[in-house]
Amino acid sequence: MEQEIIDWIKSVCDVDCEWVRLGIGDDAAILHAPHPTVITTDVIAEGTHFDLQQVELFQAGRKAMAVNLSDLAAMGAKPIAALVTLQLPEHFSLDQVKLLFQGLQEFSGKYEFPIVGGDTNRWKGPLVIGATLLGVPFSSPDAASPPWTMSGGNPDDAIFVSGCFGGSLLHHHCHFEPQIRLAEHLARHHPVTAATDASDSLVLDLSHLAQASQTGFEIDSRLIPISPDAVKQSEVTGKSALQHALYDGEDFQLICSVPASCIDRLEQDTRLPVPFRRIGRLTEKTEFTMIDAQGVTESLEIRGYQH
Amino acid sequence: MEQEIIDWIKSVCDVDCEWVRLGIGDDAAILHAPHPTVITTDVIAEGTHFDLQQVELFQAGRKAMAVNLSDLAAMGAKPIAALVTLQLPEHFSLDQVKLLFQGLQEFSGKYEFPIVGGDTNRWKGPLVIGATLLGVPFSSPDAASPPWTMSGGNPDDAIFVSGCFGGSLLHHHCHFEPQIRLAEHLARHHPVTAATDASDSLVLDLSHLAQASQTGFEIDSRLIPISPDAVKQSEVTGKSALQHALYDGEDFQLICSVPASCIDRLEQDTRLPVPFRRIGRLTEKTEFTMIDAQGVTESLEIRGYQH
Repeated sequence: MEQEIIDWIKSVCDVDCEWVRLGIGDDAAILHAPHPTVITTDVIAEGTHFDLQQVELFQAGRKAMAVNLSDLAAMGAKPIAALVTLQLPEHFSLDQVKLLFQGLQEFSGKYEFPIVGGDTNRWKGPLVIGATLLGVPFSSPDAASPPWTMSGGNPDDAIFVSGCFGGSLLHHHCHFEPQIRLAEHLARHHPVTAATDASDSLVLDLSHLAQASQTGFEIDSRLIPISPDAVKQSEVTGKSALQHALYDGEDFQLICSVPASCIDRLEQDTRLPVPFRRIGRLTEKTEFTMIDAQGVTESLEIRGYQH
Repeated sequence: MEQEIIDWIKSVCDVDCEWVRLGIGDDAAILHAPHPTVITTDVIAEGTHFDLQQVELFQAGRKAMAVNLSDLAAMGAKPIAALVTLQLPEHFSLDQVKLLFQGLQEFSGKYEFPIVGGDTNRWKGPLVIGATLLGVPFSSPDAASPPWTMSGGNPDDAIFVSGCFGGSLLHHHCHFEPQIRLAEHLARHHPVTAATDASDSLVLDLSHLAQASQTGFEIDSRLIPISPDAVKQSEVTGKSALQHALYDGEDFQLICSVPASCIDRLEQDTRLPVPFRRIGRLTEKTEFTMIDAQGVTESLEIRGYQH
């Protein structure tokens, strides 16, 4: 990679941070991260996860960071450091790298975490952006409070979801806000037994949480928050808006289970930073069901978005 | 990604390890890593870093892990965990993923570190393999002994290199052994002031170490270990074998500086796991020079391998 691009990247990633002893520029970064640390990595590729005919480079960079932050939110974790890998198309200019980095750095400014390392290569293929994110549980200055996982749910726990679902391809999938602030608020004020984010589809990701928790789930179709874009999509596809809300992917909303005894306090919490609604419950029976508009319980097909 | 491939990957990455609280399968992994932790990431791509006409999938997977392990060796660090990202071509079968993973896992078996997370996608492009590696300094069960960096060198420190250099494209670049064992031996028995690995070229990477240490360097052309493949390459290219040793990339040998007072003990150490030879010294003058075959000091051009 050209030294000009490497030098520019180094110059904008020089961040002062208590758990980073050495950032970008050596063979590896050196961290003194609190315990426990959570770590996740996701890659997005041109033509699969974004289309540069439709979104700006800024949005592509932003999405690469956002999908990883969504995973940290699902662990109830605050981001503390990131590594970024770029496969740049041959024709890419330094100015284009700068636009991409503005997107990559939007969240590192907002949530105050540095980019501590990475790898940049040019190649004949399309743009590929990878990020690895490290985080620490919001509720845990020490090791006393563990991160959330998908496996901590119990039968009769209530299922809550943030925001609304469906039609993400119209706009949301490249413009969403990862639910870091909601995760912080929940971690500090409400008990969460299990969590995940909706990347493949509400139903598929919820089924993964339920399976990991060795439960089933029952959701109520009348409680599913349906996005205006799901309604728009349904006018084009002929499928119902509810079907879009259940099975479209890339909503990147938070799905949590909480003890039934905590429902009231959560529903009365006026300081929640985003809408967070109950849509059903985990069940002892390991089946995946939905109550339809007529109040009839039906089995749900489990599938999700294929890029 | 197909559930069959995800399930298979999960099934082979289930490793028991003291610092891994949660491995593959949730939104993120949970680690209790010792302090300090080093972290590095490198991506290799078909057509840029390997050619599937010439190497097996096993070798491609092996190289993706090896380039990252080479960075850990350059920090004097033992690998403790890895994350792997795969962009798989559309036609890739589960059997091909298995071959790839055999390569990725060669070192996780040898050095006993688990793959704790990752991301796998199919796409229309060629194979792209990314890895993020975490490590801890070999010499440091506590925080007392920091990892090696490129910036700790001092004027008059001796420069040592492992193995031999040049012609890596013939074979070595996809079959090299990262210098983890050498790093371990050095960390336990010899003081290393600065280190890096030779990925771009001996001269370019050594210049980065010298610049980070605010020194220059003087190497002796008669002391550079020249690989048999550099000689073979020189017969084809017409350039000297020495030129290949100085400027070919992807040798992935270790470059270290050590105090001049420690040269004798290092040169007499019969337990070094691989050849480790003195080739020159860091200098107070911030120039990059080489003593040629006639004993004349010349300025060195600083350049490296472009993939």
